[in-house]
Amino acid sequence: MPRVTQAHLDARRQQIIDAARARFATHGFARTSMTDLVAASGLSTGAIYRYFKGKDQIVAAICEQASQALPTELTARSAHDFLEHVRTLAREEDHARLVAQIYAEAAVSPSLAALVRRQLDDLRTAVAALLPEHEPADANRIAEAFVALCDGYNQQLAVRGDVDPAPFAAALVAIIES
Amino acid sequence: MPRVTQAHLDARRQQIIDAARARFATHGFARTSMTDLVAASGLSTGAIYRYFKGKDQIVAAICEQASQALPTELTARSAHDFLEHVRTLAREEDHARLVAQIYAEAAVSPSLAALVRRQLDDLRTAVAALLPEHEPADANRIAEAFVALCDGYNQQLAVRGDVDPAPFAAALVAIIES
Repeated sequence: MPRVTQAHLDARRQQIIDAARARFATHGFARTSMTDLVAASGLSTGAIYRYFKGKDQIVAAICEQASQALPTELTARSAHDFLEHVRTLAREEDHARLVAQIYAEAAVSPSLAALVRRQLDDLRTAVAALLPEHEPADANRIAEAFVALCDGYNQQLAVRGDVDPAPFAAALVAIIES
Repeated sequence: MPRVTQAHLDARRQQIIDAARARFATHGFARTSMTDLVAASGLSTGAIYRYFKGKDQIVAAICEQASQALPTELTARSAHDFLEHVRTLAREEDHARLVAQIYAEAAVSPSLAALVRRQLDDLRTAVAALLPEHEPADANRIAEAFVALCDGYNQQLAVRGDVDPAPFAAALVAIIES
């Protein structure tokens, strides 16, 4: 039996996740079956089930990989750059449409909702940590609106196609300075 | 043959829309069939198809009825009251979860996306009209972020359950004053 390296296993797992991301973004979660994911990934049915027991586990893996690439400080420039990054992810990786599917699925799936809630908590905590000069209550308040506005921008990208981030960047700055 | 009044026809049509709203919010759009909607509405299959040719027409009717009940002026108080209204709709009518389903469906359906885009255009225009003291470019910029933040708050409600609107109301005020 050939020796299977961890790198090989990781690459195959990532191949499944990437194929699922693309398929979920274009067809939605409910309209995608494990059979569709087998076809999209180019792997065998047996291979996919070796990594994931079902769609729920794959969408959980997608959520866990969702990197937001937050800036290291919150300035007018970094807010704009961050939203440009969100815009690029929408254009190049269909990220905004994928996020819309994940929110819709989380709204009807308690287990996925729990996962998304934890990620939103982590994201708000990370944003609040970028505001050390604010009182904790103010930092948390700002972080709450910051995260919601970024997700709101994602929703606009998902439905309207490309949307200039400038008004949203200006709003982020106004929120941070409030 | 009994005389059927317009009020009766309207009431039946609304009965179908209300049943579909509830079903879409809890199960999503793709997991709801016309058969499910027949069962949920309490009407016959024939009766439903008299009003709607399919699910797409029903979700379009739901979108067209989406009343945002915008305030007549934008102040700290009215921004807070508006978000309290959004929160109440989420609690009493499952509105936030329904909106999450509509965005997800619009992200993969060009015809629904066109409808949602028109509604977003109308909403931004209505918000901008509440800012007569601003230059048009500024009013449009503020309206863009205002609408996205309200939708972002809806997304939070859809996934986290009840969420205090205070941080979002403060952010709306900061955006309006920016």
